Amino acid sequence: MNETLFLQKGQAFLALQPLSTLIGAELHALTPGYCELHVPVTEKNFQQNGFVHGGVVSYAADNALTFAGGTALGVPVVTSEFKINYVRPAVGERLIARAQAVYAGQSQAVCRCDVFTVMNGEDKLCAVAQGTIARLPAKNSST
Amino acid sequence: MNETLFLQKGQAFLALQPLSTLIGAELHALTPGYCELHVPVTEKNFQQNGFVHGGVVSYAADNALTFAGGTALGVPVVTSEFKINYVRPAVGERLIARAQAVYAGQSQAVCRCDVFTVMNGEDKLCAVAQGTIARLPAKNSST
Amino acid sequence: MNETLFLQKGQAFLALQPLSTLIGAELHALTPGYCELHVPVTEKNFQQNGFVHGGVVSYAADNALTFAGGTALGVPVVTSEFKINYVRPAVGERLIARAQAVYAGQSQAVCRCDVFTVMNGEDKLCAVAQGTIARLPAKNSST
Amino acid sequence: MNETLFLQKGQAFLALQPLSTLIGAELHALTPGYCELHVPVTEKNFQQNGFVHGGVVSYAADNALTFAGGTALGVPVVTSEFKINYVRPAVGERLIARAQAVYAGQSQAVCRCDVFTVMNGEDKLCAVAQGTIARLPAKNSST
Repeated sequence: MNETLFLQKGQAFLALQPLSTLIGAELHALTPGYCELHVPVTEKNFQQNGFVHGGVVSYAADNALTFAGGTALGVPVVTSEFKINYVRPAVGERLIARAQAVYAGQSQAVCRCDVFTVMNGEDKLCAVAQGTIARLPAKNSST
Repeated sequence: MNETLFLQKGQAFLALQPLSTLIGAELHALTPGYCELHVPVTEKNFQQNGFVHGGVVSYAADNALTFAGGTALGVPVVTSEFKINYVRPAVGERLIARAQAVYAGQSQAVCRCDVFTVMNGEDKLCAVAQGTIARLPAKNSST
Repeated sequence: MNETLFLQKGQAFLALQPLSTLIGAELHALTPGYCELHVPVTEKNFQQNGFVHGGVVSYAADNALTFAGGTALGVPVVTSEFKINYVRPAVGERLIARAQAVYAGQSQAVCRCDVFTVMNGEDKLCAVAQGTIARLPAKNSST
Repeated sequence: MNETLFLQKGQAFLALQPLSTLIGAELHALTPGYCELHVPVTEKNFQQNGFVHGGVVSYAADNALTFAGGTALGVPVVTSEFKINYVRPAVGERLIARAQAVYAGQSQAVCRCDVFTVMNGEDKLCAVAQGTIARLPAKNSST
């Protein structure tokens, strides 16, 4: 599949997630094992103090990790677990989550993600994440 | 402060977070070091396959951890980091996140959270989380 | 299998791990999904400041999580991942790691662990951990 | 301070940790915010099946994260928390943990670590870690 088509399939997949639509996420790059997800910052993503809510940052990290892991494995997947460290308040015009698989085996991929905020055109790291994306178990079995 | 007033202050705080309003979160219990946060499941929280999106589950865990840690410390806080393991698909009518501080020092609290889904009146564990809630650094300093 | 025999099998298993012998770990309780592992504090476990080295605390948490998950699943396992928060310096006569499975499926278990230090007969929480224990994949396959 | 002296000070520090001596850890590189720690594989580090015990891998990750964070912050530190994903069995002649700070503020640094095994001269990723290194609180205060 060529790169453009691969990205378009990912965008169509993202569009099927009501929460992603609600938050306004956009898929800007997708190749096997790599994903770049953007979230334009709007008032609805805010928490009480005018920063982007940590839940939006972790949503972006979680979803980017899952796209990276899913495309690395090439099968339907679920996020098994992840961990996130917030390092700076998420202020600015846009969040950019870049995730990539650092390992992919038969049943799971381990991925890392950097989340940046873009403010006045400058990227600043605001969170780092790491997690496990697992092949979706066959029907009638539990993980 | 009595318990009802304490909970009401927490609910007022939650209402200041546009993302929490967007997701429909409700604070059902709040005491120093303990929090119970509910998220009624509606279509907007779904991901592509009809389950609640993992981002909603992690939002609930993150916010519950922060309320537990913030009330344990008794000062303005930020979530420093957390980790979540998803153990079952989030299906059902409602998510319930119960978090409590297991340690509170001068500058940070370590908290755990169980997230349950309620289906036909039955609670099932769907995720477990653990994280660090840090006292918000004074103005003009960075964490 | 009766409880005593189950514990004895676990102790025999622990004795096969040179690192565990080196560190001096002792298995004090083992039932399906639950484990209590002790590490007597001696000078060799110290770090530079006279506290028990964090590596010993994480070893104890990791191994206890694995015993809890392995006995919950009832099959050969590996630790897939874990996370640990250190909450107090590990001082005292003994570390006690208590781990239990909070979920067990077909291919993995999610477990939590509390690590205590015992000083003058009093237990104090020194670390909390959470992780995934996975069924060992069949030969000739990779995870 | 020149690079050689900086590394020598780190090596002298490592030599003060009885556990590190016991495990046989060696500091091969150290600059502010970066650390490379080696652990030659010997029988004493094994677990029951001839692999290096996960506890040795997590020890290496934990210690490398701490050196990276401590040198990034330039003050006495403690490991606050970390998370590790094991991706391949640790077999081979040597473990190499490479850690670097991805963020350093006033009171804490967030670091990542890759742990490789070296077998027949070839490096293979065996674990990835991420954690928080915190400035040691002043005497008479608790974290």
